[in-house]
Amino acid sequence: MRTQVAIIGAGPSGLLLGQLLHKAGIANVILERQSADYVLSRIRAGVLEQVTTDLLDEAGVGTRMHQEGLPHTGFDLLFGGERHRIDLHSLTGGQQVMVYGQTEVTRDLMAARQAAGLPTVYQAGDVSVHDFDTQHPQVRYQQDGAWHTLDCDFIAGCDGFHGVCRASVPEGAVTEYEKVYPFGWLGVLSDTPPVHHELIYANSTRGFALCSQRSATRSRYYVQVPLTEKAENWSDEAFWHELRQRLDPEARETLVTGPSLEKSIAPLRSFVAEPMRFGRMFLAGDAAHIVPPTGAKGLNLAATDVKYLSSAFTEYYTERSNAGIDHYSQRCLQRIWKGERFSWWFTSLMHRFPDGGAIGQKLQDAELAYLVQSKAASTALAENYVGLPL
Amino acid sequence: MRTQVAIIGAGPSGLLLGQLLHKAGIANVILERQSADYVLSRIRAGVLEQVTTDLLDEAGVGTRMHQEGLPHTGFDLLFGGERHRIDLHSLTGGQQVMVYGQTEVTRDLMAARQAAGLPTVYQAGDVSVHDFDTQHPQVRYQQDGAWHTLDCDFIAGCDGFHGVCRASVPEGAVTEYEKVYPFGWLGVLSDTPPVHHELIYANSTRGFALCSQRSATRSRYYVQVPLTEKAENWSDEAFWHELRQRLDPEARETLVTGPSLEKSIAPLRSFVAEPMRFGRMFLAGDAAHIVPPTGAKGLNLAATDVKYLSSAFTEYYTERSNAGIDHYSQRCLQRIWKGERFSWWFTSLMHRFPDGGAIGQKLQDAELAYLVQSKAASTALAENYVGLPL
Repeated sequence: MRTQVAIIGAGPSGLLLGQLLHKAGIANVILERQSADYVLSRIRAGVLEQVTTDLLDEAGVGTRMHQEGLPHTGFDLLFGGERHRIDLHSLTGGQQVMVYGQTEVTRDLMAARQAAGLPTVYQAGDVSVHDFDTQHPQVRYQQDGAWHTLDCDFIAGCDGFHGVCRASVPEGAVTEYEKVYPFGWLGVLSDTPPVHHELIYANSTRGFALCSQRSATRSRYYVQVPLTEKAENWSDEAFWHELRQRLDPEARETLVTGPSLEKSIAPLRSFVAEPMRFGRMFLAGDAAHIVPPTGAKGLNLAATDVKYLSSAFTEYYTERSNAGIDHYSQRCLQRIWKGERFSWWFTSLMHRFPDGGAIGQKLQDAELAYLVQSKAASTALAENYVGLPL
Repeated sequence: MRTQVAIIGAGPSGLLLGQLLHKAGIANVILERQSADYVLSRIRAGVLEQVTTDLLDEAGVGTRMHQEGLPHTGFDLLFGGERHRIDLHSLTGGQQVMVYGQTEVTRDLMAARQAAGLPTVYQAGDVSVHDFDTQHPQVRYQQDGAWHTLDCDFIAGCDGFHGVCRASVPEGAVTEYEKVYPFGWLGVLSDTPPVHHELIYANSTRGFALCSQRSATRSRYYVQVPLTEKAENWSDEAFWHELRQRLDPEARETLVTGPSLEKSIAPLRSFVAEPMRFGRMFLAGDAAHIVPPTGAKGLNLAATDVKYLSSAFTEYYTERSNAGIDHYSQRCLQRIWKGERFSWWFTSLMHRFPDGGAIGQKLQDAELAYLVQSKAASTALAENYVGLPL
């Protein structure tokens, strides 16, 4: 088998890249280790920047998002028992974000790919990437007990943090930067109406909490927990009790609880691999970088990578120019490090740090107080949250 | 001897408080452990906020400052080998700072105090404070081999970090917050023209450097050094060599060097004691809080304390109101913690941290890049530098 771009991974990065390349007339095949249903079962982010929604429109998959997604023009910061609204719209001159679950984005992309009849190999086993330092890269994989080879011009590694692409880069060719936070997020998904029509980011004396949502009837809540906690030790009741204690009186009263559809603990990590290009193999999204979820930047940074990568490939095939390809890594990393910086800062601001000491807590309190009093500081938060200019 | 307010310490805080109280018709005596010459020999800050210059005007000691001080409407951030100007004036709607050495402020205050014939006891030995939890506080000290007692209504502890006032508070009545940084500032004062007409804050791969000034002919330079360094191991030549390496090519060429008038290493510390009032004793300035010098906030926070304290005493004596006294600690601490937050942040941004790791350095680089690209982030820096509203 032969294609122009072999895409490893059918998460939102790989699917979006495939769709944009298809629109540009570039042949591509997606190989995915898991089944489509498994991919759809992964619960992830749900806040899309304007850049991301524009890109989904460009890919022709924005219809349902515009119908069902919830434009949010602000969110609440809760600390010291009081809520303070960050008015994204007025602080950024009219920008907003779109609340629309990553699962739904993936579903829309899968449907579009199927409708276009584009080749996707699910449950591709033992995927391996080869010869990406030559003009003739190759991908090998197993399916139904048989070995297959996919010849291509380029490999796009959209296969996540644990994927095979970054792992196949020769030692010494990649530099990895990493920071692991001393806590995780215990998350619950439930078919209950959100406690508030916008998101609430809470810094309480018991730790961080986030009241998020996927729709008017589906909520996503999180509480900061020590890394030693296990999700199976948390009953639904215990979760709702802990969440309620971290909210303000009004939210405490408004909160509607119900059975959890999903409950899990995610660790928080900052991670960047540099560079993101190795000859004819390119990394995009989680394969190259992870942010702690506090700033809702993970999917959005992945989308920007895909935007740059699809235009690099398009330039290559339509203009015979290597410029986009050659600048891919640098263009992405400039934006990624700003996203990493913001995610680290917002995480540091909103969580309780077991080793921060008494002065660390007082400095955090002072920063929160300053943040909501200063228009400049609020604007800096808002402009990062809606997404910095490309 | 008897007075209304006994002021411990003849640094700028104590002297300014004395002058403002005198203007309000409140009797005060200053006791200082050292000689006037010794006090004047201490080299300290040199950047005054508008709030501070206003207060010096109010105290009637602003004349020479307005003649000889240098209004600065901006400063340079140097990183990645390039300078970026922070335009304080345009970012804050017309505000600026005044470069005028703390030594000069102290000299002007001493002269005014002497001209007004106000009592100051220099070289007061074994100063101790008593009965400040009663209506009749008392200060005892030795001079010329004899013991003296000063009865008063109030004690103002303007006696610095190592002073006797805070140390005399019963254990458990005060909470101390502290953070010590893993480096110090090696500073040199020299009679050379400043390398640039504004300050340069540099984050170089060799560490932080600051090009500061006291006048058009007197410069003050600093370089970040490990805490293990000793000033006596640094020749003037070695200092200038190190400083030059941390500057950009233009500054490297412009730098005029000369013999050092003073050379010393200062550790960097964040410190706050809460509360700042203990019955009839009040702490002001360094006696209650220390900031790392990066944000030039030390003297300015002290001036705000003095402003609040002098108006509290004035309210007490003229209106028989305890309101100012009762709110003193809380009013000061709100502003102090914001100054501590800013000083900690600016210190974290501009120095090399031996234990920050590779990702720490990349996040710092990203923050610097963001800071000068974002008007909101630049404004947040500028508004803190010129001083947040009271």
